[in-house]
Amino acid sequence: MTQPIYSPGLEGIIAGPTGLCLVEQTGLWYRGYGIEELAGHARFEEVVHLLYYGELPTRPQLDRLRADLDRYRELPGPIVDTLKLIPKDVPMMDVLRTAISMAGHFSPVKGESIDDWRQEAIRLLSVAAAILGARYRLIKGKDPVPPREGLSHAGQILWLFEGRQPDPLAEQLINLTLILYAEHEYNASTYTARVIASTLSDMTSAVVGAIGALKGPLHGGANEQSMQLMRRFGSAEEAEQWTLRAIRNKEKVVGFGHRVYKQGDHRAWILEEKMKQLAHQKGETRLVAVYDAIKNTMRREKNIFCNVDFPCGLVYYLLGLPLDVYTPLFVCSRVSGWCAHIMEQHFDNRIIRPLSEYTGPPKRPWVPLEKR
Amino acid sequence: MTQPIYSPGLEGIIAGPTGLCLVEQTGLWYRGYGIEELAGHARFEEVVHLLYYGELPTRPQLDRLRADLDRYRELPGPIVDTLKLIPKDVPMMDVLRTAISMAGHFSPVKGESIDDWRQEAIRLLSVAAAILGARYRLIKGKDPVPPREGLSHAGQILWLFEGRQPDPLAEQLINLTLILYAEHEYNASTYTARVIASTLSDMTSAVVGAIGALKGPLHGGANEQSMQLMRRFGSAEEAEQWTLRAIRNKEKVVGFGHRVYKQGDHRAWILEEKMKQLAHQKGETRLVAVYDAIKNTMRREKNIFCNVDFPCGLVYYLLGLPLDVYTPLFVCSRVSGWCAHIMEQHFDNRIIRPLSEYTGPPKRPWVPLEKR
Repeated sequence: MTQPIYSPGLEGIIAGPTGLCLVEQTGLWYRGYGIEELAGHARFEEVVHLLYYGELPTRPQLDRLRADLDRYRELPGPIVDTLKLIPKDVPMMDVLRTAISMAGHFSPVKGESIDDWRQEAIRLLSVAAAILGARYRLIKGKDPVPPREGLSHAGQILWLFEGRQPDPLAEQLINLTLILYAEHEYNASTYTARVIASTLSDMTSAVVGAIGALKGPLHGGANEQSMQLMRRFGSAEEAEQWTLRAIRNKEKVVGFGHRVYKQGDHRAWILEEKMKQLAHQKGETRLVAVYDAIKNTMRREKNIFCNVDFPCGLVYYLLGLPLDVYTPLFVCSRVSGWCAHIMEQHFDNRIIRPLSEYTGPPKRPWVPLEKR
Repeated sequence: MTQPIYSPGLEGIIAGPTGLCLVEQTGLWYRGYGIEELAGHARFEEVVHLLYYGELPTRPQLDRLRADLDRYRELPGPIVDTLKLIPKDVPMMDVLRTAISMAGHFSPVKGESIDDWRQEAIRLLSVAAAILGARYRLIKGKDPVPPREGLSHAGQILWLFEGRQPDPLAEQLINLTLILYAEHEYNASTYTARVIASTLSDMTSAVVGAIGALKGPLHGGANEQSMQLMRRFGSAEEAEQWTLRAIRNKEKVVGFGHRVYKQGDHRAWILEEKMKQLAHQKGETRLVAVYDAIKNTMRREKNIFCNVDFPCGLVYYLLGLPLDVYTPLFVCSRVSGWCAHIMEQHFDNRIIRPLSEYTGPPKRPWVPLEKR
């Protein structure tokens, strides 16, 4: 062993391999497929198959995956009972953490083969969406709606919210955000999932840990916060003035900048185009003007680009979704990336156990209570 | 930035500072106090104060900490209701993961100051023990007993199991194992807690993630598995024969070896002495002979020492505790170390976000479904 290397935050440390995702300045690839092509052509279920099985599905494979997703959507009664025990004002991310942990106790998937793990990963995707939908309705005083077989995963999410046939454009946009958020290599929540999996713990434990990490304001939550920001302004001028002041005061503007992408986040460009179509269709012009004002000011003054969370917040808002479900929708997508990483870690494992540098008091003798 | 460094498992990487704990071949120190002295003199509550506040408590500080612990012991009704919703055969570690997540929704601690975080850390210690005790009784068909004010934390754990004044020797041994398990720098569960905390997420989320990591068979669970092993043998000869065979077959013997300690684990020596006193008092000779046979064979043949989990399993067994609570008792102790690390991370934070090395397929063009 050579001299240990000091790196708090693990910047500059390659903490392991992954075959799932390549991030470069020029783009993002899931198992070799560019994000533009996936965003332009794929259903989210095809991306899930790609992440879980390594390849895009054939028609029979896709049908089987969709049938599996349908099979796990119905929540066992005790999970709904648990949701009812949680006070109404608890943030949705906390609710997901508890309810997905609870759902782990009712998994019918038992074996230890890679195919059993894949089934469990499919189940977790279904369950996350079903829990979100059930809670969404319960806090409005409505009963959860039973899932409807045959819908796409995106359509199912909307169905579980409203209990009616989803609008095609809304379904298309949810499908797109699911694809864009699915996977992004060793970010903090995914790395959390891998550390947990590295003790050979189970998939639910690793996903529950990842939800706890995604919840943090430095990680998930930026789509929600972006929208909170945009909503504050009555006009583009107001937004521009605020942004200039924030830059002068060296405040962080949420939804801008990225630890990896320095020349812009491709996912943001893809989503912005669709967001503008949606806004046009909805007759919304003020918020788009606010969006452009903040974006153009940040670009002009600081050469900092927005990331995927910035347009995503506005997409969800234009779809009429409440702020509290934005980060949970990120979960409904990222469960796929987390589970793919958990399987990668589990089946080629090495426990993750770094060293630390001691910075505390020097060695000292015990002092009895009466002498302190 | 220099060339990135490749280290899966983070071996040889110092992932950050800590003032909590120093691990050397020659021993273990919590904030400068040697584990032998703490084990010989301290109450667990004094160790908790040391970890949370930086110093051993004065008498008024200790009284306040004990009053705080008492204050949070009573579980809100919905947490007990949640325990009742979990099927009886679910492993206790999974139950803790869900119920501690649930308990997060009912925390009365709101603020963001370091003292608010310390209160939350005290609450989590109380709640973990209360949940374990309540579940222990519920699966036996008994109602949880209300906590009894004024008991030590160790005594309280025994009280919550049995609802009667704890035996002094049992209380003393639980206190000792709580101290020995409290803290051990950047192990996998503690590092999980730090990664989650590094997104500025909350304490419950980080502790719930850590429980998921501790659950894994490569991390916690060794005290339970050690006892499962010892129970199999009718005599020292049988145990020795099995151990020799295991060595020949290059099988891992649970409770032996340590990634850090190569010349023995001081905690094991401390605990072994007390274990032998307890066994003597209980008139148990066979299991101690089995214990010594495995230990001496491993030492003689492989120069590998047992770690703290090996005697700990036997201590809990001699105290009449069921196997399923051994790792959860580890949780009831380690919550203190986790929370101390979470606070250290939170109040001097840098998000933990490593890099990965892409090993997947080369870039490839989209293939439509009908052409696959």
